[in-house]
Amino acid sequence: MSEKLLAETISTIGAVSSEALSEATHRQANLTKPAGSLGLLEKVGIRLAGIAGQCPPPVPEGAVVGVFAGDHGVCAQGVTPWPQEVTVSMLLNMVAGGAAVNVLSRQAGAKVMLTDVGVLGDYPASDGVRDRKVARGTRDLSVEPAMTRDEALRAIAVGIEAADEAVAGGARVLLTGEMGIGNTTASSALISVFTGADVSSVTGRGAGVDSEALARKVAVIERALALHAPDAADPVGVLASVGGLEQGAIAGFILGGAAHKVPVILDGVIACASACVAVALAPEVRGYLIAGHAGTEPGITEALRHLELDALVDLGLRLGEGTGAVLALPMVQASARILGEMATFEDAGIAAG
Amino acid sequence: MSEKLLAETISTIGAVSSEALSEATHRQANLTKPAGSLGLLEKVGIRLAGIAGQCPPPVPEGAVVGVFAGDHGVCAQGVTPWPQEVTVSMLLNMVAGGAAVNVLSRQAGAKVMLTDVGVLGDYPASDGVRDRKVARGTRDLSVEPAMTRDEALRAIAVGIEAADEAVAGGARVLLTGEMGIGNTTASSALISVFTGADVSSVTGRGAGVDSEALARKVAVIERALALHAPDAADPVGVLASVGGLEQGAIAGFILGGAAHKVPVILDGVIACASACVAVALAPEVRGYLIAGHAGTEPGITEALRHLELDALVDLGLRLGEGTGAVLALPMVQASARILGEMATFEDAGIAAG
Repeated sequence: MSEKLLAETISTIGAVSSEALSEATHRQANLTKPAGSLGLLEKVGIRLAGIAGQCPPPVPEGAVVGVFAGDHGVCAQGVTPWPQEVTVSMLLNMVAGGAAVNVLSRQAGAKVMLTDVGVLGDYPASDGVRDRKVARGTRDLSVEPAMTRDEALRAIAVGIEAADEAVAGGARVLLTGEMGIGNTTASSALISVFTGADVSSVTGRGAGVDSEALARKVAVIERALALHAPDAADPVGVLASVGGLEQGAIAGFILGGAAHKVPVILDGVIACASACVAVALAPEVRGYLIAGHAGTEPGITEALRHLELDALVDLGLRLGEGTGAVLALPMVQASARILGEMATFEDAGIAAG
Repeated sequence: MSEKLLAETISTIGAVSSEALSEATHRQANLTKPAGSLGLLEKVGIRLAGIAGQCPPPVPEGAVVGVFAGDHGVCAQGVTPWPQEVTVSMLLNMVAGGAAVNVLSRQAGAKVMLTDVGVLGDYPASDGVRDRKVARGTRDLSVEPAMTRDEALRAIAVGIEAADEAVAGGARVLLTGEMGIGNTTASSALISVFTGADVSSVTGRGAGVDSEALARKVAVIERALALHAPDAADPVGVLASVGGLEQGAIAGFILGGAAHKVPVILDGVIACASACVAVALAPEVRGYLIAGHAGTEPGITEALRHLELDALVDLGLRLGEGTGAVLALPMVQASARILGEMATFEDAGIAAG
């Protein structure tokens, strides 16, 4: 059933509108500013027009941050200094509204939609968490596949359904977020597979490991790739062998957004890894993506190149949760307003420069 | 009288609170995130605490973008492809709300306060423009001083009074903006004087000149500096000889903000040049500054180094008007909320990592 949902979603995803892209490109050149002087904001506005199929595009309102939480068996290999219990603690912190993503979302007028897709620990049921647990964390990807193929498909389905629910509730822009101790390890593995880059060039310190632990992290991922020999032409297989439950859910969330013709703002390295999965499943997804945050994690740079995206924000964040995407949201909205509300040279009676 | 206002303003400017800076630094380390993982946002939050003298700092609301318009006699030297009449046209475009700074300010909840401090052309009087014209543009700085010392002081006073008025109206954060064909030339000259950097290393293409015009722009500035031999120890003298009326007003706006203990978000290269003037007049001003936008203009990089600032936004903007500062505003507000609203590890019952 998850497989059917994925196939249906992929079949729904179409190309963005080339007519609206051209119209928006033309309009940018006629607004009262030197050509290109709003930099990346101009490109994002054009992209929004292509996604919406109209120029000017509507301002993307009703933002929903899909935060997916999961655990990672690979923590057994000492890839992070944080104990796995922190995943539950931070989940509860998010339910209470005390995490960074909550604070930033309140300011930006975005709603946090928190989903447990694979947290290891127990906690009291709460209206603040959607319980869609596929498994109690993944298995240790360095010794066996992280998930079965069915688990990977179910994780993707959780994300697709979350996107459906958010859009049904009025969201016209989706943002990706996550929480999961150890999830940069799985992300680097995914990015290495889909971009073809060396593991060492796409693996970083995550939420803070020292040089020795970084070397161990690289070795663990290299061992996993040697063990599973994942084939980029089989994205679900790659996700199952070296990915994570939240990466699967985010990939589904992205696919769902694209299927609904809604722009999806990516957060950091976990989002980028998940987007690589989504794009491998449905190449047209590229046109619906906006990169929220450039990263201190080296995998982001490589993944953004693969995804053909430039990031809006570069504040040296390395927190995840969706924080970089939420900080980029006002810029994305601004890029639509520029196309909709700025005067043209003709309006203002100025000869174009 | 302008000289007296300047002296009084400078005497009012005190250091930011070192107690609040320490308290905020300590609090950042105890919030539920890996230490330093919110990057530049953490530093800006700490700075806001120092300025406000309390931790957490209040969220800076009531933003006013002080947009100062002026013309430049140096346009006679062909330093820009845009005719000087565009200054008036864009001023009227701003009055009508059709310029980029208007669009971005509406979204960010900021008010545009538009001041004519030295526009050359005539236009119908309007409630949308504060008429504080000190002169009809500057003189050609490559052949004579751009302003008299008295004009420079009066331009600074216009900015101080604008800051006073904005703060009296409830502003708790000021943003700098400007409009003036030819004003990157004067800005590069100011930055070269105050940072000691070569003219060629701090001069760029402004709103769009080709390589030949860029070489001419550099030569014009070098000639001006050789002619006037401006002394960085006499900031008003430097401003008078190679600056601009809007740079003077922005320097005053910055000084006024610092005197009221209000953070000032700088836009691009014109703001950075003006901040160099303000900091030369009152070194304590540094602590009140926040850099909105990194630049494609090379002078920004050098000036930000001199001002000891890292920019929040880097979108490849080269428009000015205040656009980069307005785009940074939500991030500045977010940095205060992080300190005020995030849970600590103790609140969330998590052992710090």
